[in-house]
Amino acid sequence: KMACCGRCFCCQCCCREGETRTPEELVKKDSLDYDRCISEPYVEVLEGMDNKKAKKYEAVHWMMVFAIGVTVGLLGLFVDFFVRLFNKLKFTVVGDSIEKCSDKGCLSLSLLELLAFNMTFVFIASVLVLIEPVAAGSGIPEIKSYLNGVKIPGIVRLRTFLCKAAGVLFSVAGGLFVGKEGPMIHSGAIVGAGLPQFQSITFRKIKFDFPYFRSDRDKRDFVSAGAAAGVAAAFGAPIGGTLFSLEEGSSFWNQALTWKVLFCSMSATFTLNFFRSGINFSKWGSFQLPGLLNFGEFKCPDGDKNCHLWTAVDLAFFVLMGVVGGLLGALFNCMNKNLAKYRIRHIHPKAKFIRVLESLLVTMVTTIVIFAASMLGECRDLSTPTAHNTTLAGSEDINSTIRQFFCSNKTYNDMATLFFNPQEAAIHQLFHQDGTFSPVTLSVFFFLYFLLACWTYGVSVPSGLFVPSLLCGAAFGRLVANVLKVKLGMDIYSGTFALIGAAAFLGGVVRMTISLTVILIESTNEITYGLPIMITLMVAKWTGDFFNKGIYDIHIQLRGVPLLEWETEVEMDRLTASDIMETNLTYVYPHTRVQSLVSILRTTVYHAFPVVTENRQNERDFMKGNILISNNIHFKKSSVVSRAGEQRRRCQSMKSYPSSELRNVCDEQSAAVEPSEEGEDLLQQMLERRHAPYPNLYPDQSPSEEWTMEERFRPLTFHGLILRSQLVNLLIRGVCYAENQSSTNQPRLSYAEMTEDYPRYPDIHDLDLTLLSPRMIVDVTPYMNPCPYTVSPNARISQVFNLFRTMGLRHLPVVNAVGEIVGIITRHNLTHEFLVAKLRQHYITI
Amino acid sequence: KMACCGRCFCCQCCCREGETRTPEELVKKDSLDYDRCISEPYVEVLEGMDNKKAKKYEAVHWMMVFAIGVTVGLLGLFVDFFVRLFNKLKFTVVGDSIEKCSDKGCLSLSLLELLAFNMTFVFIASVLVLIEPVAAGSGIPEIKSYLNGVKIPGIVRLRTFLCKAAGVLFSVAGGLFVGKEGPMIHSGAIVGAGLPQFQSITFRKIKFDFPYFRSDRDKRDFVSAGAAAGVAAAFGAPIGGTLFSLEEGSSFWNQALTWKVLFCSMSATFTLNFFRSGINFSKWGSFQLPGLLNFGEFKCPDGDKNCHLWTAVDLAFFVLMGVVGGLLGALFNCMNKNLAKYRIRHIHPKAKFIRVLESLLVTMVTTIVIFAASMLGECRDLSTPTAHNTTLAGSEDINSTIRQFFCSNKTYNDMATLFFNPQEAAIHQLFHQDGTFSPVTLSVFFFLYFLLACWTYGVSVPSGLFVPSLLCGAAFGRLVANVLKVKLGMDIYSGTFALIGAAAFLGGVVRMTISLTVILIESTNEITYGLPIMITLMVAKWTGDFFNKGIYDIHIQLRGVPLLEWETEVEMDRLTASDIMETNLTYVYPHTRVQSLVSILRTTVYHAFPVVTENRQNERDFMKGNILISNNIHFKKSSVVSRAGEQRRRCQSMKSYPSSELRNVCDEQSAAVEPSEEGEDLLQQMLERRHAPYPNLYPDQSPSEEWTMEERFRPLTFHGLILRSQLVNLLIRGVCYAENQSSTNQPRLSYAEMTEDYPRYPDIHDLDLTLLSPRMIVDVTPYMNPCPYTVSPNARISQVFNLFRTMGLRHLPVVNAVGEIVGIITRHNLTHEFLVAKLRQHYITI
Repeated sequence: KMACCGRCFCCQCCCREGETRTPEELVKKDSLDYDRCISEPYVEVLEGMDNKKAKKYEAVHWMMVFAIGVTVGLLGLFVDFFVRLFNKLKFTVVGDSIEKCSDKGCLSLSLLELLAFNMTFVFIASVLVLIEPVAAGSGIPEIKSYLNGVKIPGIVRLRTFLCKAAGVLFSVAGGLFVGKEGPMIHSGAIVGAGLPQFQSITFRKIKFDFPYFRSDRDKRDFVSAGAAAGVAAAFGAPIGGTLFSLEEGSSFWNQALTWKVLFCSMSATFTLNFFRSGINFSKWGSFQLPGLLNFGEFKCPDGDKNCHLWTAVDLAFFVLMGVVGGLLGALFNCMNKNLAKYRIRHIHPKAKFIRVLESLLVTMVTTIVIFAASMLGECRDLSTPTAHNTTLAGSEDINSTIRQFFCSNKTYNDMATLFFNPQEAAIHQLFHQDGTFSPVTLSVFFFLYFLLACWTYGVSVPSGLFVPSLLCGAAFGRLVANVLKVKLGMDIYSGTFALIGAAAFLGGVVRMTISLTVILIESTNEITYGLPIMITLMVAKWTGDFFNKGIYDIHIQLRGVPLLEWETEVEMDRLTASDIMETNLTYVYPHTRVQSLVSILRTTVYHAFPVVTENRQNERDFMKGNILISNNIHFKKSSVVSRAGEQRRRCQSMKSYPSSELRNVCDEQSAAVEPSEEGEDLLQQMLERRHAPYPNLYPDQSPSEEWTMEERFRPLTFHGLILRSQLVNLLIRGVCYAENQSSTNQPRLSYAEMTEDYPRYPDIHDLDLTLLSPRMIVDVTPYMNPCPYTVSPNARISQVFNLFRTMGLRHLPVVNAVGEIVGIITRHNLTHEFLVAKLRQHYITI
Repeated sequence: KMACCGRCFCCQCCCREGETRTPEELVKKDSLDYDRCISEPYVEVLEGMDNKKAKKYEAVHWMMVFAIGVTVGLLGLFVDFFVRLFNKLKFTVVGDSIEKCSDKGCLSLSLLELLAFNMTFVFIASVLVLIEPVAAGSGIPEIKSYLNGVKIPGIVRLRTFLCKAAGVLFSVAGGLFVGKEGPMIHSGAIVGAGLPQFQSITFRKIKFDFPYFRSDRDKRDFVSAGAAAGVAAAFGAPIGGTLFSLEEGSSFWNQALTWKVLFCSMSATFTLNFFRSGINFSKWGSFQLPGLLNFGEFKCPDGDKNCHLWTAVDLAFFVLMGVVGGLLGALFNCMNKNLAKYRIRHIHPKAKFIRVLESLLVTMVTTIVIFAASMLGECRDLSTPTAHNTTLAGSEDINSTIRQFFCSNKTYNDMATLFFNPQEAAIHQLFHQDGTFSPVTLSVFFFLYFLLACWTYGVSVPSGLFVPSLLCGAAFGRLVANVLKVKLGMDIYSGTFALIGAAAFLGGVVRMTISLTVILIESTNEITYGLPIMITLMVAKWTGDFFNKGIYDIHIQLRGVPLLEWETEVEMDRLTASDIMETNLTYVYPHTRVQSLVSILRTTVYHAFPVVTENRQNERDFMKGNILISNNIHFKKSSVVSRAGEQRRRCQSMKSYPSSELRNVCDEQSAAVEPSEEGEDLLQQMLERRHAPYPNLYPDQSPSEEWTMEERFRPLTFHGLILRSQLVNLLIRGVCYAENQSSTNQPRLSYAEMTEDYPRYPDIHDLDLTLLSPRMIVDVTPYMNPCPYTVSPNARISQVFNLFRTMGLRHLPVVNAVGEIVGIITRHNLTHEFLVAKLRQHYITI
């Protein structure tokens, strides 16, 4: 009943703002808290921290980061090994069958074999996703949201990890047009979130007085390291990985953290390379393998002095290709968005097995298309194996993956070579195969692949988008190269055009900037591709942004995640903090009765409450007799640092400072003050300085509905913020004192006790609080954050946004010039949609 | 007289804090202001800014960044071209002379020729530095300070640019052991600072309503782009350059800016490559040249399957080399620091030509050492030219730079090969020459080079440190490789060890982390070197940090620049904002008389003044008769946003909002309020809410010395910050009103007028203000920043530091819970030395 009431209350407040958010959404999509809460238990921890402890702890941090890197590297090895194994099994069995049947005419049997393989694999992947629905998709939208500071339940849980890592094996092996990169990044992030927590639970011996790893802040740091390691392992791009987590997890630029993240990425890359070179090529101790997704070596044949990878003239074509890539990407995103909307409306509400059926349908269609298209490929002449390709250390020979289906010796089936291979091999073919592909084959391939990849992304299996986009784009690029080379007779390097095509299409779909540039440069291992890749990605992004957002942002939006962009539009600066803040505050007093706290907690869904005191006329009278009010006033007095008080304190501390010169200055000045007056006098001043003609009540109860507006919005001096989880924790542990006691009798909690239940704090509705007397009083002041960042009501949106985003805040109180809280800003008040609505309102009212 | 008084005043206040800063230093080493001042003229600009204008402006920004990149690329081309030309001239003439004289025995003639060349070149470089002393040294300390947010006069001026860019040509050509990389980074930064300013002055047509480029914020953004372009051009490392400016110019991570910086770096690299491939190799339109400093291609000979660039076993040696590199670096820094101290004490105070003499002395010694050592080199067998080196596109054949001095055919002089070449060629020799160098030669070379490079850095010529460190370290690495290969018979790749040695020594000297790793990876163009380079740099940094700081930080410290580190030590969190803030405030009122302003400006050296009002008992009475006080109180009233007032405002705006549902809620609530009472009532409340038993004076004059402490430090409500430059500007332009007028009669300045004099605002002491009546009143409220970031006095240092550093602030007011300003924090209050002093004081007093 109470809970329902709370929801109504919240709902009303939301509607009042012209919003359609349900309270469940508000609760679920809360922010992570990157700012530290400087409560008294935390300060105790800080004060117990000397430089030696700090160093020890720093060393543990490095070890953790290294452990994350190695684990993610091993994970990559695991995924790669099994995908290869399954693919080899499948292609060998089916390939042999086709070779045999192309003579005998039993091709339908081969098709059935292929179908059986693929549908079994995808079925397993799909069932794994049923167990943990968050494991579906690429996971990049989830990680992006998490690093952006949004708390979504379940995305960094162990179960998700298992389902994702195992599921992606089967969805890739199942022949779907999906990549393993996105899921590997997600898995890496989960490793980052989980490993440091695991350590503190299992190995009790490695325990530190500084419970560093049990806060949103540190978890998020580790998640960015893990995600970077995931990128590094998937693409062999440690720098790109580091930039990826900087780009997505843009808190302030933290030198030490970035250095650790780079180390983590390096560890992942080189762990993977160490084991791969050992296992796959029996060269233990050598590390010089490219990453899992490598593009091979782009190199002119030896001795050909006229060959250039690219020239100034080519740049013009690259720009055009960027435009086309942007258009194609926008089309892809548009189609996929509508499909996703359709799925949300018509498939997700239905029974879960429907989703499995959809995956199986996609698999069936994909398999049949692959099979049918392979039969229609042209037979092309096999070029002589070029010398430089065979010398590529560790990577397989380019000609080992061509398919001869239905073609005579010395020729090969170009369509089958593209379709009937793992996608990475097909990309290699398009980048490096000197033998040509026919334009018709490339067009058909591109068209089919585009449609099927678009359909596949969003099916409930773990599915990345990088490799399909690259392959699709490479076909497009190779097609352009064919046209230029054969039709126009230009002297170009086909591989470069395929690479640029891949970059253009991928850029058009995902719209990433810096990190994608660096990832692609690192994957090619050729710094001279920097300029063309960058220009292509820029043009593709700008073209695409003209029509819609990137695919990840689209999916984030569809899930209703309140993502904060990089910066607000310039126009938004017409609004100020007071325009967008939430003014309907639910607050607590420094000393509050248990009954009030419970009632507030049960009837609201807010995650934090400002701690306030009231400004009133004759507070003095109230002090007599009522211990509660007296304590509140005493707190207020002691919390206000006045200039005179501060100066006095300094001078007192200087007297004990062994410098006579300094002391004299203070002695002179403090001589004028009568020390005896001090205690009583200050309180007197304090009480008289603020009073206002507002109702004379220091309410014990929660806000009444009968209050006038003046009563509801009377001035309240802001003293700090306390979180719901902290209040619940205080109630559970019985932190309170009786009415006839002093607040010093209240039990004290340590920082470890405060954070013990992290990250899942109990719900107020699950608690049995009958043992606690409702008349007891809780002193929340030691546990609140007494100095959160605040903004002035006049601050412009860009300033508010910058502070909120940069510091990774969760709640931002708006405090006026005399220290009264006038509102509070959360993530929801800063989302693009909310700002646009407010701006529209602003235009109407002026 | 006034100015002198101001200095005394400030000095006193500094001494009181136990400081030894002179006012001149305080003024000179002020912070840049990265935060925007949201004054009314700026708001006007913002409100006039629609999305179309914003896009146009964004386009100009991109063009600017591109122009900076191209210019820096051309600059690199210019420097490279002339250094090559001079070097070629010198080495050809002297080399020929030696070849001739080695038979005839006229070697002293050759030495004289070499001396004449070198001393002429260095003399020119040295004279250029006399013209602009800031052009001395590498410039990286200066750029680091600038990007850190310290304003040092002259470092981004055109004259500095000319002296630096021309000077570095001659100091490098003069055979000194200096590099051109540091000066190129500095020059690039100046291009970044200057180019956008130039645009707005010369091409009046390209003028925008948004005077974006005329603020510290934008200048700093362009400087980071320019510095990144400098790195990119010097090392051919666009990603490394971007990370360099992120690492040094760590404001908050700004996605859009980083993308632009990367584009700028790419433009610089590829402009340079385009022209170099055209001019040097006549391959116009090809871009595939490595950067100016490239390390050549590390590659195993074709067909040698057992050759590895490095293996797991080598990593252990790399760690050891890192330790040694760190130790050597620390030794280098220690020696250089003492030398620099000696120079500051004994050379700088003397006549300027002494500095020139010192440079010439260094040149003479260096030249003689080079010449003498070259004669003592061993003759080694020339290895057969290996196939792979000759195919290196564009780079010169490794064997073209060996020197045969005094050696028979088929052998070469190893010492002369290292000493008698440009340093880049010597590095190439150490990295790629298959023919060995004798251990004795390498040791002697390392030893001599170490000492001379150490002596040279700090001489008053433009001088980089990267290339000398790399060369010195490469000799060390090659020595290790020699020992391992020849003595222990290990199968290693010598070039890798030379590279790692170079990284270790460079890392030990400069102690850079992320950006240096990436720069070295990009210079080798080999991603597989990532792990060993990173590990070596990490170990070298840690080892070196055990003894002293990096060379750049040492020089920054010697210059007394208040640099802010990345973060504070954990221990510092025992202090709070109130412990470190400056409490002796000089403030202005919203409405102040001209005479008070002038007096304040002339007697203080502060850069900003808080705008405050007083809290007092019977303000009501004061309102009658005195327009000044009445205006102040009126402002205060209107600036305080109360919750009730805010709610009322919202409801009023909602009435005109076309949604009946929303309106009803407000109508209900606002019914209780009598609208007629509103105006008078609110003021009444306002006046009565705050009063305190402090002296009944609303002083027109500046603080009197006779005040009691209570008077001096009476509570002041904080309303905003106004800069000295803004106040001076208001006075110059006569922005004030007469006593009998309303403040609306005051003339209004536009944003353009406010920023017209940027960056050099006139000094108050230079002004003739006799035309201005001292009794006039200035209303500063439209021009102050009404909502700067503030902190609570209880905030911990880490929080304060983070806010200050991240937001790039200049002044951070400390405001208590009731909105009273209690102090102000500037860069000086956050430097390591200041914090350490405060912490010591803290320990003594508790």
